[in-house]
Amino acid sequence: MPNMVVENKEARSGWEWRMRVNDRLSSKVLSSEDGPMISRMLLGLKSVIKLMFLKPSNFVKKAWDLARSDPRKVFHGLKVGLALTVVSLFYYMRPLYDGVGGNAMWAVMTVVMVFENTVGATLSKSLNRICGTFLAGFIAVGVHWVALQSGEKSEPFIMGISVFILASAATFSRFIPSIKARFDYGCMIFILTFSLVSVSGFRVDKLLAMAHQRLSTIIIGTSLCIIISMVICPIWAGQELYTLITRNMDNLANSLDGCVSEYFVISSDEDSTGSEKGSDGNLLGYKCVLNSKASEESLANFARWEPAHGRFNFRHPWRQYLKIGAEMRGCAYCIEALNYGCINSEIKAPEYLKRRVSNICLEMSSNSSSVIKELASIIKTMRKSSSIDFLMEQMKSAVQDLRNELKSLPILVTPQPLEEAENTRDDKKTEANFTEVASVSPMEIIPLVTLSFLLIEIAARIEGIVDAVEELADLAQFKPVDDEHKEDGTMKIFQRVQTA
Amino acid sequence: MPNMVVENKEARSGWEWRMRVNDRLSSKVLSSEDGPMISRMLLGLKSVIKLMFLKPSNFVKKAWDLARSDPRKVFHGLKVGLALTVVSLFYYMRPLYDGVGGNAMWAVMTVVMVFENTVGATLSKSLNRICGTFLAGFIAVGVHWVALQSGEKSEPFIMGISVFILASAATFSRFIPSIKARFDYGCMIFILTFSLVSVSGFRVDKLLAMAHQRLSTIIIGTSLCIIISMVICPIWAGQELYTLITRNMDNLANSLDGCVSEYFVISSDEDSTGSEKGSDGNLLGYKCVLNSKASEESLANFARWEPAHGRFNFRHPWRQYLKIGAEMRGCAYCIEALNYGCINSEIKAPEYLKRRVSNICLEMSSNSSSVIKELASIIKTMRKSSSIDFLMEQMKSAVQDLRNELKSLPILVTPQPLEEAENTRDDKKTEANFTEVASVSPMEIIPLVTLSFLLIEIAARIEGIVDAVEELADLAQFKPVDDEHKEDGTMKIFQRVQTA
Repeated sequence: MPNMVVENKEARSGWEWRMRVNDRLSSKVLSSEDGPMISRMLLGLKSVIKLMFLKPSNFVKKAWDLARSDPRKVFHGLKVGLALTVVSLFYYMRPLYDGVGGNAMWAVMTVVMVFENTVGATLSKSLNRICGTFLAGFIAVGVHWVALQSGEKSEPFIMGISVFILASAATFSRFIPSIKARFDYGCMIFILTFSLVSVSGFRVDKLLAMAHQRLSTIIIGTSLCIIISMVICPIWAGQELYTLITRNMDNLANSLDGCVSEYFVISSDEDSTGSEKGSDGNLLGYKCVLNSKASEESLANFARWEPAHGRFNFRHPWRQYLKIGAEMRGCAYCIEALNYGCINSEIKAPEYLKRRVSNICLEMSSNSSSVIKELASIIKTMRKSSSIDFLMEQMKSAVQDLRNELKSLPILVTPQPLEEAENTRDDKKTEANFTEVASVSPMEIIPLVTLSFLLIEIAARIEGIVDAVEELADLAQFKPVDDEHKEDGTMKIFQRVQTA
Repeated sequence: MPNMVVENKEARSGWEWRMRVNDRLSSKVLSSEDGPMISRMLLGLKSVIKLMFLKPSNFVKKAWDLARSDPRKVFHGLKVGLALTVVSLFYYMRPLYDGVGGNAMWAVMTVVMVFENTVGATLSKSLNRICGTFLAGFIAVGVHWVALQSGEKSEPFIMGISVFILASAATFSRFIPSIKARFDYGCMIFILTFSLVSVSGFRVDKLLAMAHQRLSTIIIGTSLCIIISMVICPIWAGQELYTLITRNMDNLANSLDGCVSEYFVISSDEDSTGSEKGSDGNLLGYKCVLNSKASEESLANFARWEPAHGRFNFRHPWRQYLKIGAEMRGCAYCIEALNYGCINSEIKAPEYLKRRVSNICLEMSSNSSSVIKELASIIKTMRKSSSIDFLMEQMKSAVQDLRNELKSLPILVTPQPLEEAENTRDDKKTEANFTEVASVSPMEIIPLVTLSFLLIEIAARIEGIVDAVEELADLAQFKPVDDEHKEDGTMKIFQRVQTA
C-alpha cells in the first residue's frame, strides 16, 4: 500500500499513471479466470477510462501540437473572436443599433460566414456575399412587383414558381466548374436571399427599406472582416501558394538527392553504420508534392481575388504556379517509382557494379537537384538567374555521361574481348573484377539500369519545370539579374560544383 | 455586297458567322495601317462581341454538356428548388406560420445551407446544425444568466469576453483534422448561434421561448431536407465512393493493358496502320486514379453518416475503400512512369528484341489486369471470388517467366558461346538474329528492361491492392462464393485465359 502511494507521487504527471492503471487492468483481465462477467465489466471500465481521460487528453495534445506548429491558426481564431466581439458591442451601443435597425443580426452572420483563414478567401466570400445579396434582392423585388400586379390569388403561385425555378437553376449552376471555383458562395447567398425576400414581406416599399438595411449591415460586416483580416497578421493566399511551391521544390530536390545517395552511399556503408539510415522525413519529401494538388488549386483560386501585397501585383500570374506544381508532380511520380521500385527492391545489384555507377549517378542526382534548388531560388528572389543555363548544361552533360556509362554496362557483365571494353574508363578496375564478373546474374543489373533510366527521365521532367518557371519569370516580369549578382551567382555555383 | 448576304444566309447557325466576323475584324486589324486608334477600337469591338456572344454561349454549352453527362446534378437542383418551395409555401399557410412564429426564416436558411448533393453530406450538415445550435443555445443561456446576476454594468463585458473566448476557441478547433473532417459545419453554427443569442435578447425567459422556436424551425428544415434527399432520386455518398473505386479499378486495368499493348502491338504494326494509335482515353484512365484522392476522402467522410442503404450496412467499412484507393494510386504512379518513361521514350528498342519479349510482357500485363478486373468484380458483386487465387498464381508465374526472360536478355545482346544460350527458348530465332546482334547498342535494351522491371513492380503493388480488398471482404462480410458460382467463375477464367 505505501509502495503504491510512492509510485503515485512519482508519476504525478498523470499520463504515465493512467497508462499504468490501464496496463494493470488489462493484464488483470487477461489473467483473470473469475468468469466472463467480471472481465467484461473490467473491459468496460477500461474503455470508459480511455474515453474519459485518454481521448480528451489526446485531443488536447493534438490541438497543442497544431497550435505550436502553426501559431497563425491561433491568431486566426483570435481575429474571428475580435471581429465578432466588435460586431456584438455594436449592438450595445444604441445609436448605431437604431441606425441599422433590427437587421444588425445580419452583420453577425456575415462575420461568421465570411471570415476565412486567408485574405483572398475572405475577400472572395465578401464580394460573393455582397453581389449575391444585391442581385437576389433586386430580382426578388421585381418578381414581387409582378406578383402584386397579377392579383392576390395568383401571388403565392408566382412566388412559389419563381423560387422553384431560380433556386433549381442556381443550385445546378454551382456544379459548373468555372462557377464552382469562383462564385459558389455567391450562388448560395443568391438562393438564400431570394427565398428569404420572396417569403418575408408583401409590400414593395417595406421590402426596399429592408433591402437597404440588409445590404448596409452586410457591407458593415464584410468591411470589418476585410479590414481585420488584412491589417492584423494577414495571411495572403498568394504568399501561401508561393511558399508552398518553393517549399515543395526544396522537398523535391532533397528527396531526389536523399533517395539516390541512400541507395549508393548508405548501402555501401551498411557494414559500418548498421541500421542507421538517412532520415526518412527528408527522403519522403516528394510525397508532399504528390498530395498538394488540392491545396494549390484552392490557394490559386483565392489568390486572384487579392490586391497587390508584398512583392506581388494584383494580376500576378497565379495560374502559372499550378502549372509548375503539375510539372513537379510529374517529377515526383518518377521519384516514387525510383524509391519503391529500385531502392527498396528485393533484387540487390552487386557492390562493385554499384560502386562503378555510383559516382555518375550521384553526380546526376546532385546536378538535377541543384537545378531544382536554383529554380526555387529564382522564385524566392523573383529575379532571373544567370546560372540556370549553366546548371542545365551540367545536368544535360551528366545525362550524357550516364547514357555512355549505361552503354558500357552490359558489356562488363559478360566476359568480352578487351578491345570492346575500351569504352570503360578505368581499365584497371575492370580487369580486377573480371573473375568476379562471370558469376554475376544479368538480372542483378536490372535495378541499376532502371534507376539510371528513371534518373534520365527525371532530368527530362525537370526541363519541363524549368520551362514553366521561365514562363512564370516572363509573365511576372521578374527582374533580370544585374552584373553584381551575376558574378556572385556564378561564383557560388562554381564553389558548389567544386565542393560536390 | 449580294455575295455577303448569301454568305450570311448560308451560315445561319450564328456560330460560324460570328467566327468569321471575328476573323475578318482581326485580319483587318492586323493588316490595317489606319493608325493605332482605329485598330484599338476594332480590337475593343472584337472583345466586346466575344464577351457578349461567345462567352455566354460557351457557358450554356458547358452547362448543357454537364447536364447531359450527369442528369442527377439537374435532379439535385430540382430537389433544392422543391424543398425551398415547400418551405416558402409553409409561410403562406397562416396556421403553421403562427405556430413557429417569426423565426420561420430559419427554416429557409436551414434548407439553403444544409441541402447537399449526397444524402451523407445532407445528414452530416443537418446533425451538425442541430447539435451546434442546441449546444450554443444552451451555453449562451447559461452565460446570459451569469451576466444578469453580476449586474447591468458588467453585463456587456461578460458577454463580450465570452463571445471572444468561445468564438476564438471554436474557430481554432476547426483547424484540427478530426474536427475538420466531421464537425466543421457544427463549429461554425455553434459560433453563429452563440453570437446571435448573446447579442439578441436580454431576458432569459424570452430567450428560452426564442430558442425553442429556433430549434423547432431548424428541425423542420432539416427533416424536410433529409426526407427529400433520401426519397427522391437519392444520391448516396457510399454508393458514389463504391462506384468511384470500382470504376477506377477498371480504368487502371484498361490503361495497364492499353499501355503495354500500345508499346508492343501497335509499334510493330506501325508500318501498316500509320499514325492510327489506340484510343488515348483508354490509356490515360490511370490519371483518374491519380486525381481522385480528394473526392474519395470527402465521400468516405460523408458515407459514414449514412444509414443502411442498398447493399451497405450502417457500419460498412468505408475507410477501407480509402486504403484500396491509396494502393491503387501506388500502382498508377508506376503506370505513369511506364507510360512516359518507356513508351514515349526517345530510345527505341530494336524490333526483334521487342518481338522476343512482347509475348511475355503482354501476358504479364493481361494477367495483372485480369487480377485487377477480378478485384473490381469482387467488389461489384460483394462476393468473395474463387478465382482470385488462381489469377494471382498466374500473375506470379508470369512474373517469374519475365524474370527468367530478363536473365537471358543481356546474354542475347552480346555474342555468346552456344551452351550459355540454352536458357533461351527458340534457338532458331536466336541464331537467325545472331548477325544482327553484334550491331545492337546495349543502350537500346534499356527501355525494355525498365518496362519489364516496372511491370514486375506493378505486379507487387497489385498484391497490395489484393490484400486491401481481401481485408475489405472480411470487414464487410462479403458472401463466400457458392459452388454453382465457383464452377461458373472457374469456367470463365479458363475461357479468358484460353482466348488471351
